[in-house]
Amino acid sequence: MKLKTPIIIVNFKTYSEATGEKAVELAKKAEIASKETGASIAVAPQFVDIVRVVDAVEIPVFAQHIDPIKPGNSTGHVLTESVKEAGAVGTLINHSERQLKLSDIDAIITLAREKGLISCVCANNPTVSAAAAAIGPDIVSIEPPELIGTGIAVSKAQPQVVTNTVNLVRHINSKITILCGAGISQNEDVSVALKLGTNGVLVASSIVKAKDPYSILRAFADATKP
Amino acid sequence: MKLKTPIIIVNFKTYSEATGEKAVELAKKAEIASKETGASIAVAPQFVDIVRVVDAVEIPVFAQHIDPIKPGNSTGHVLTESVKEAGAVGTLINHSERQLKLSDIDAIITLAREKGLISCVCANNPTVSAAAAAIGPDIVSIEPPELIGTGIAVSKAQPQVVTNTVNLVRHINSKITILCGAGISQNEDVSVALKLGTNGVLVASSIVKAKDPYSILRAFADATKP
Amino acid sequence: MKLKTPIIIVNFKTYSEATGEKAVELAKKAEIASKETGASIAVAPQFVDIVRVVDAVEIPVFAQHIDPIKPGNSTGHVLTESVKEAGAVGTLINHSERQLKLSDIDAIITLAREKGLISCVCANNPTVSAAAAAIGPDIVSIEPPELIGTGIAVSKAQPQVVTNTVNLVRHINSKITILCGAGISQNEDVSVALKLGTNGVLVASSIVKAKDPYSILRAFADATKP
Amino acid sequence: MKLKTPIIIVNFKTYSEATGEKAVELAKKAEIASKETGASIAVAPQFVDIVRVVDAVEIPVFAQHIDPIKPGNSTGHVLTESVKEAGAVGTLINHSERQLKLSDIDAIITLAREKGLISCVCANNPTVSAAAAAIGPDIVSIEPPELIGTGIAVSKAQPQVVTNTVNLVRHINSKITILCGAGISQNEDVSVALKLGTNGVLVASSIVKAKDPYSILRAFADATKP
Repeated sequence: MKLKTPIIIVNFKTYSEATGEKAVELAKKAEIASKETGASIAVAPQFVDIVRVVDAVEIPVFAQHIDPIKPGNSTGHVLTESVKEAGAVGTLINHSERQLKLSDIDAIITLAREKGLISCVCANNPTVSAAAAAIGPDIVSIEPPELIGTGIAVSKAQPQVVTNTVNLVRHINSKITILCGAGISQNEDVSVALKLGTNGVLVASSIVKAKDPYSILRAFADATKP
Repeated sequence: MKLKTPIIIVNFKTYSEATGEKAVELAKKAEIASKETGASIAVAPQFVDIVRVVDAVEIPVFAQHIDPIKPGNSTGHVLTESVKEAGAVGTLINHSERQLKLSDIDAIITLAREKGLISCVCANNPTVSAAAAAIGPDIVSIEPPELIGTGIAVSKAQPQVVTNTVNLVRHINSKITILCGAGISQNEDVSVALKLGTNGVLVASSIVKAKDPYSILRAFADATKP
Repeated sequence: MKLKTPIIIVNFKTYSEATGEKAVELAKKAEIASKETGASIAVAPQFVDIVRVVDAVEIPVFAQHIDPIKPGNSTGHVLTESVKEAGAVGTLINHSERQLKLSDIDAIITLAREKGLISCVCANNPTVSAAAAAIGPDIVSIEPPELIGTGIAVSKAQPQVVTNTVNLVRHINSKITILCGAGISQNEDVSVALKLGTNGVLVASSIVKAKDPYSILRAFADATKP
Repeated sequence: MKLKTPIIIVNFKTYSEATGEKAVELAKKAEIASKETGASIAVAPQFVDIVRVVDAVEIPVFAQHIDPIKPGNSTGHVLTESVKEAGAVGTLINHSERQLKLSDIDAIITLAREKGLISCVCANNPTVSAAAAAIGPDIVSIEPPELIGTGIAVSKAQPQVVTNTVNLVRHINSKITILCGAGISQNEDVSVALKLGTNGVLVASSIVKAKDPYSILRAFADATKP
């Protein structure tokens, strides 16, 4: 599976507005925005909701995390195979709210590759993004944690962070898809992100907690057009 | 919700024999064994599979873990509400393969109580079982980690561990349901566990990895009868 | 070794005012306050500073943490034997800034007992204090994390938390030494803590960051007198 | 401070043979071997023993770990400043027995640089070594965990692992010092490691648990000579 870029990935986190049946509703809105605009939009619901969301929509579904484990004795952990069989096409890895040991990131990227899941490693700064790129995931997403959920977009407030990330990552691996996230809340934040050399955005609260998630997503989708 | 005891809880762990569609099939076998015998049997599938299993069977479904979080910014974590909305009636907590900080166990038991989930805290020895009981969960399950998956049953190999646990836990809280697990693989292991004063067993590999899980479960179910 | 109570334990944390040579100076001030008043005062410096502090003073020295390990392959961990040989007489366990898994708390208390170290388990609320007491440490210290470093004393702002802790802990184990901490900054906070049934206090910033740590400690020491 | 290479770093781990006074004795033997041969040898004792070892010898002393914290409220953690003030010149980071989150490795390398400590990041395979190198430490040390403590040397059993690491790391940063470790137990293991392009070795059990640590170290030291 290959994702079309530019792409918008919507992280549902553990927001009540995106849990259970509401996760399905939100995913449907994302699908409509994607179909109407032709823009590439993916969603990342909670583990428990993956099956329902996959059943309800045709846009790509990501897990928010998988564990560095093989089938067996790992009660309470997330098995790559369970996520894959449920129909997810990829997974976030090392989100700032679910950070991982370096060797586990490496192990998870390998597992994802073996099982045919797209790997999207999150990183908190350009240096860490470069380190993540050196491991060879499909996607690296730079998200300065201090901007997450603030509405102050990384692409506008810290354009040099995005540019540095793009330069460092491209130097190590010219083919990796690069996203940025944190504070993305206006269409312009999306278009600026693309101009800075990224291939899309990772968004959450600006969509999930919006009064009208469809309208915001629709505007973001339009902003990904040339 | 109140569980009927004696009870057998089947932990699906992350075994491939109990992932995805196979989780549903195994849960159906557990349901048949339960209906035929009238014995109380619950299943604990992986997070991703909870929805499917709940849709397929009427026996109680447990999560294998939940996180000490409220709705919000907790990417990659397991929200009590997501598990509850999916139809689970309870959750394992602090399984030896998913151990938790003491204060997190307390927080999770509180969350489970608030949201109406049955809390089953696992403990590795009698002392830790007593500490767990002091926090006030619905169920405490003693499982010496060195016996897990061995086929050497705690109830037969270490009856004093079970007896000590029952005594220490009852001294702190006379109403808590007490289970034991680790190595339970023969009907006799189940009946001995009950004779030692427990209210049931927590089992995994002896069922999940059996050639004929139904037969084993059926025998275990019969062994819970007076 | 048996500590004299009532006791004041001064946690040096990782404050620069209590690192290296400054740890030694601060410990000497605590020793003077102890000798002048006859009050029992102990200090808990950083790992690296234990040797220096033990060499410089005769009052009891605690580690801030030890790991649940035996001698061997545990690079970067804190071995009970290393702390003991350096001359510490006890250790904090599960401080709110260094929380531990339930089974590790149990393992550490056992290690401390075997090696002759006094174990002081910290807990964030009365329920967790009761659970800690059930494991059988020498000391339980209740510290509501939201008050730590605020100057709002647990003994004055939340007397019921202290009283509940004392009742729950005494019910489980009548001999355990009980301390309280968080926000203790006035002599009166100390005397109230004792009146509520505790055997002393665990303090940090009010001493370590004071302009004149000796004076404050001296006043706290006086407040422990009948 | 700049280390002379080739270098042998002796990790004392938490072995009883290298705890307390025995840590001092072992460090003295390493110093003798270093002075007699002119070879560069450093030692990494436990936190508690750093002060004693630094007082006793003139060879470079490393910590086994530091935490990603600044001075303040971090009870039970290891402050860079405490290690520096004790006289250590560097620190191991992310040893396979003390693995860290990716962003914490980045934060610790930054802290070490700011405080003038040499940073040595350990990695379990060539890919992870490359990722570590991208963060910019002074030293990267490759140690396949499955060979640690076996006496089967990485340099002889898996020369391609060492060669791949050297190539990947050099491609990212041509100036980083590269070590290898795991199973190094013969002089030849040391000389082969250097021939494969490394700048030294990280050793532990073969020295610490030897009947005559001096002789082994002396032989290793000779093997670093051209």
